Amino acid sequence: MLRTHTNGELRLADVGKLVTLTGWVQKNRKMGGMTFIDLRDRYGVTQLVFNQEINPELCEKANRLGREFVLQITGKVAERSNKNRNISTGEIEIIVSVLKVLNEAQTPPFTIEDETDGGDDIRMQYRYLDLRRNCVRKNLELRHKMAFETRRYLDQQGFLEVETPVLIKSTPEGARDFVVPSRMNQGQFYALPQSPQTFKQLLMVSGFDRYFQIVKCFRDEDLRADRQPEFTQIDCEMSFIEQEDILQMFEGMSKHLFKAIKGVELSDFPRITFADAMKFYGNDKPDTRFEMKFVELMDTLKGYGFSVFDEAEYIGGICAKGAAAYTRKQIDALTDFIKRPQIGAKGLVYARVEADGNVKSSVDKFYSQEILQKLKEKMNAENGDLILIISGEKTSKAQKQLSELRLEMGNQLGLRSKNVFSCLWVVDFPLLEWDDETQRFYAMHHPFTSPKPEDIALLDTNPAAVRANAYDMVINGVEVGGGSIRIHNSGLQKKMFEILGFTPEDAEYKFGFLMNAFKYGAPPHGGLAYGLDRLVSLFAGLDSIRDCIAFPKNNQGRDVMIDAPSLIDNVQLEELALSVKK
Amino acid sequence: MLRTHTNGELRLADVGKLVTLTGWVQKNRKMGGMTFIDLRDRYGVTQLVFNQEINPELCEKANRLGREFVLQITGKVAERSNKNRNISTGEIEIIVSVLKVLNEAQTPPFTIEDETDGGDDIRMQYRYLDLRRNCVRKNLELRHKMAFETRRYLDQQGFLEVETPVLIKSTPEGARDFVVPSRMNQGQFYALPQSPQTFKQLLMVSGFDRYFQIVKCFRDEDLRADRQPEFTQIDCEMSFIEQEDILQMFEGMSKHLFKAIKGVELSDFPRITFADAMKFYGNDKPDTRFEMKFVELMDTLKGYGFSVFDEAEYIGGICAKGAAAYTRKQIDALTDFIKRPQIGAKGLVYARVEADGNVKSSVDKFYSQEILQKLKEKMNAENGDLILIISGEKTSKAQKQLSELRLEMGNQLGLRSKNVFSCLWVVDFPLLEWDDETQRFYAMHHPFTSPKPEDIALLDTNPAAVRANAYDMVINGVEVGGGSIRIHNSGLQKKMFEILGFTPEDAEYKFGFLMNAFKYGAPPHGGLAYGLDRLVSLFAGLDSIRDCIAFPKNNQGRDVMIDAPSLIDNVQLEELALSVKK
Repeated sequence: MLRTHTNGELRLADVGKLVTLTGWVQKNRKMGGMTFIDLRDRYGVTQLVFNQEINPELCEKANRLGREFVLQITGKVAERSNKNRNISTGEIEIIVSVLKVLNEAQTPPFTIEDETDGGDDIRMQYRYLDLRRNCVRKNLELRHKMAFETRRYLDQQGFLEVETPVLIKSTPEGARDFVVPSRMNQGQFYALPQSPQTFKQLLMVSGFDRYFQIVKCFRDEDLRADRQPEFTQIDCEMSFIEQEDILQMFEGMSKHLFKAIKGVELSDFPRITFADAMKFYGNDKPDTRFEMKFVELMDTLKGYGFSVFDEAEYIGGICAKGAAAYTRKQIDALTDFIKRPQIGAKGLVYARVEADGNVKSSVDKFYSQEILQKLKEKMNAENGDLILIISGEKTSKAQKQLSELRLEMGNQLGLRSKNVFSCLWVVDFPLLEWDDETQRFYAMHHPFTSPKPEDIALLDTNPAAVRANAYDMVINGVEVGGGSIRIHNSGLQKKMFEILGFTPEDAEYKFGFLMNAFKYGAPPHGGLAYGLDRLVSLFAGLDSIRDCIAFPKNNQGRDVMIDAPSLIDNVQLEELALSVKK
Repeated sequence: MLRTHTNGELRLADVGKLVTLTGWVQKNRKMGGMTFIDLRDRYGVTQLVFNQEINPELCEKANRLGREFVLQITGKVAERSNKNRNISTGEIEIIVSVLKVLNEAQTPPFTIEDETDGGDDIRMQYRYLDLRRNCVRKNLELRHKMAFETRRYLDQQGFLEVETPVLIKSTPEGARDFVVPSRMNQGQFYALPQSPQTFKQLLMVSGFDRYFQIVKCFRDEDLRADRQPEFTQIDCEMSFIEQEDILQMFEGMSKHLFKAIKGVELSDFPRITFADAMKFYGNDKPDTRFEMKFVELMDTLKGYGFSVFDEAEYIGGICAKGAAAYTRKQIDALTDFIKRPQIGAKGLVYARVEADGNVKSSVDKFYSQEILQKLKEKMNAENGDLILIISGEKTSKAQKQLSELRLEMGNQLGLRSKNVFSCLWVVDFPLLEWDDETQRFYAMHHPFTSPKPEDIALLDTNPAAVRANAYDMVINGVEVGGGSIRIHNSGLQKKMFEILGFTPEDAEYKFGFLMNAFKYGAPPHGGLAYGLDRLVSLFAGLDSIRDCIAFPKNNQGRDVMIDAPSLIDNVQLEELALSVKK
């Protein structure tokens, strides 16, 4: 090693030792006849000292060192007179006797500090410098730890990590596949997996019993703010289980992670049905760090001549505790917020519960104080609370709008701390979703999800009412994982493809191998997948998954650092028998 | 759980317990009034018993169960009268009281036994059934353990596992890249990484200090017997180190794996230079489970009128201990072996050292007994040994042939046991290889490998003589890992690209980001990568890496189970602005 110690290692007990350190120049400051350099590596920062009087030549050399120069120094550990309690090595410094520049550095285009002066674009272009920043590297250290602890837990539970192929077959259903032209089979393509779903099910057919994999998956989607074309899943599957076993196993895993990584002991996760999640939060991934549940107000507010409500299919309210003092301006801002095209509400009705218990609403001319008192009671509101009401001609749409309002109020009232973790399971998802545009059903989870046995009969009569043995793990309003009990019967799987509008030929071409496998003794099985990127972001308190990915892509799917994607040689195209249309 | 125990779990101590088991019917045999079923899962096999007299209905049901049916049974654990010492549950059996068929099974196309009647093709087509075989599943269990122990070791040594991107930029140098057309950037392509080489070096520039990743890599090569288009590397890199540190660290890792997985304590790995490996074994990955080193015989055998030797640039021999009794027929077979086009030797000279010490050779008419005695002495041969000699007009070619002969003799004499592990480091590889065909130098390792500092001056005068700080770990004649100290100086890297025939523009286009990164303070660094597939194969004693891969591809790069690659929809092609040439 070119060093005897790291820059995070030396303490008072080491005073007097001759040590060799390596690292980067974080700071270089001259004070009187002394030069101080902060030498940085992954492990910490150590202060180096050069004295003009004792060794003028060495000190001069030190003065010429720029930021981010790479050094190897040898010197004696000394106690610092002016101790720095903020860093672990703050009690000592090194009186340098030998200084070697291992590599020079141009001045970086932005400062290598937690609070940097570099904007997003330049930091992405020079990501290798951005990654030098403590706050960015910490996220990747956390990611390493979380992946390692995940493996440790699953290994202890008897899971085997099995690698499934990356070059597979294109079976687009939902998102688009990335495809890979085959040179040896010209005109044919591999696809990159959107998930190892079918392979993990085949491993269950093989009797692997407990499988997992931390694995890259790929989706060629138009990228929204927080999506990446390649992302990482903790993918798991178990045999001879029921839904309850999966929930227990992975609730256990989440608890293990919170304990091992954050030292937090979580209590058992509440469970809520999809129907209740929509009813109380208008959201299948409710943020339960705060209450503010929806209260349905059709009985309370309909039929008093306020046409907006009278014509509504849904009227719902939330009670913002202690927010009665909201000004007109604040409420107008909320109204603007929910009227934005992304949310699309038509308006907001509010009712303040004043200090004396009177209720004052924006629709006083339609409602008597008596009715408003009933509203107050129904909302379980107390003096000083603010009731916010949204209605709509379509229940699901109005609930979605009210959900956005609820989350915004959570933000405004400081109820969504990143240091609080509220976990739950959402269960009993519908099996199918009807799509008006294409006039067909889509699988809400995926085509391999099993209907609840008691609902199978409904598949023929009322498919929309069929519930699935599907579940999502939600933490702080983020869906960190989800899964289902799978179909393990060849005939039921075939029927499912029919309902989803596959022709028998298409189903056979795309998934024949799976339906065939089910004929040779498939065990009951199920599983789930966590989004590792999201899980790490949540643990790190990040706003974007991008910050926990070493080399992320931008919203156009580009890696601006290496400049990919890019043109390829004509030779390469010819070998693949491809041409690009102009 | 649908079971209370696994099929590998119950012992004599459990007798009397009421248990529920699940699994597959391995065997079903009727003996007198009894029916015995072997129920299998990943964990073992348990015998189920049904008695015609006690419960005729249940017994009839059991008789109808075919192989690979999936069962759930409940019954009482009983001591077996006829114990089976070969299986862990062989002392007990289950007197079944409840039998539920969880899924039926068609008769599988081959037997699910270690010694199966299924050929390669059918086993690959039904890989999910092949994976049910104990011997196949064991390989994947081993793979899981090895990956887990690798992570444990590296984590303890302070390495961080960092995921690098899979969608990168095409920079073919050596093997072909697989490419991925971009829909959002039409006409442009991503490439799949042949290794995360440049990214791990950038992580060193970022100060990550110790990085690893167990990661899929991709090469679009014409597949030889034991290559896969996608393969897995244990990829590692360290900063502020010298070659010695890398060798120590990863020798430690290999020792840890051998200890943890196989209970084998390895002694320190010998080191041999590339030059010596070629001189003594004609091979840069010598199998050192046995000696039989090359002895150079130019001085001994040249100039006696045997024109083949007189005209040779190289004459070398090996001494096969105790093989003097080889018959003429056996020696003819050896001669045929080395004359095969893949090896291409012109002939084989042999000399038997007989029991009385006399040497009898195939070229007696050219060599007196005196010379042959000198040969015997030179070869360090004893009575009863067989000396085999190959010569050639080109040293490297003749050495390669002699190497093949040596390995074959090792096989024939039983010196290459799969239960013996001989590890070594090959060091001091040449930096460059001259290619006659394209009349240019290629990097022997890759373009980022550092020349030895003392050889840098030779880059201008005699590039072929420059040695690299590169090293391979070889076990039993298999290169399981290799790496190098990297260039960390922008100027030297530029020069290296020049020597390799890159135009400045090309170097800048392909690797500008790396050379640029080196300008901002790159630390000295180096690393290596293990081939996980090869390492697992070696531990498992497999002849092909395919057997330790869950879903391998065949020699045409096809997955015959899912039938990939395959045609894709025209819609997909149009979105990518691609057309396939007919």
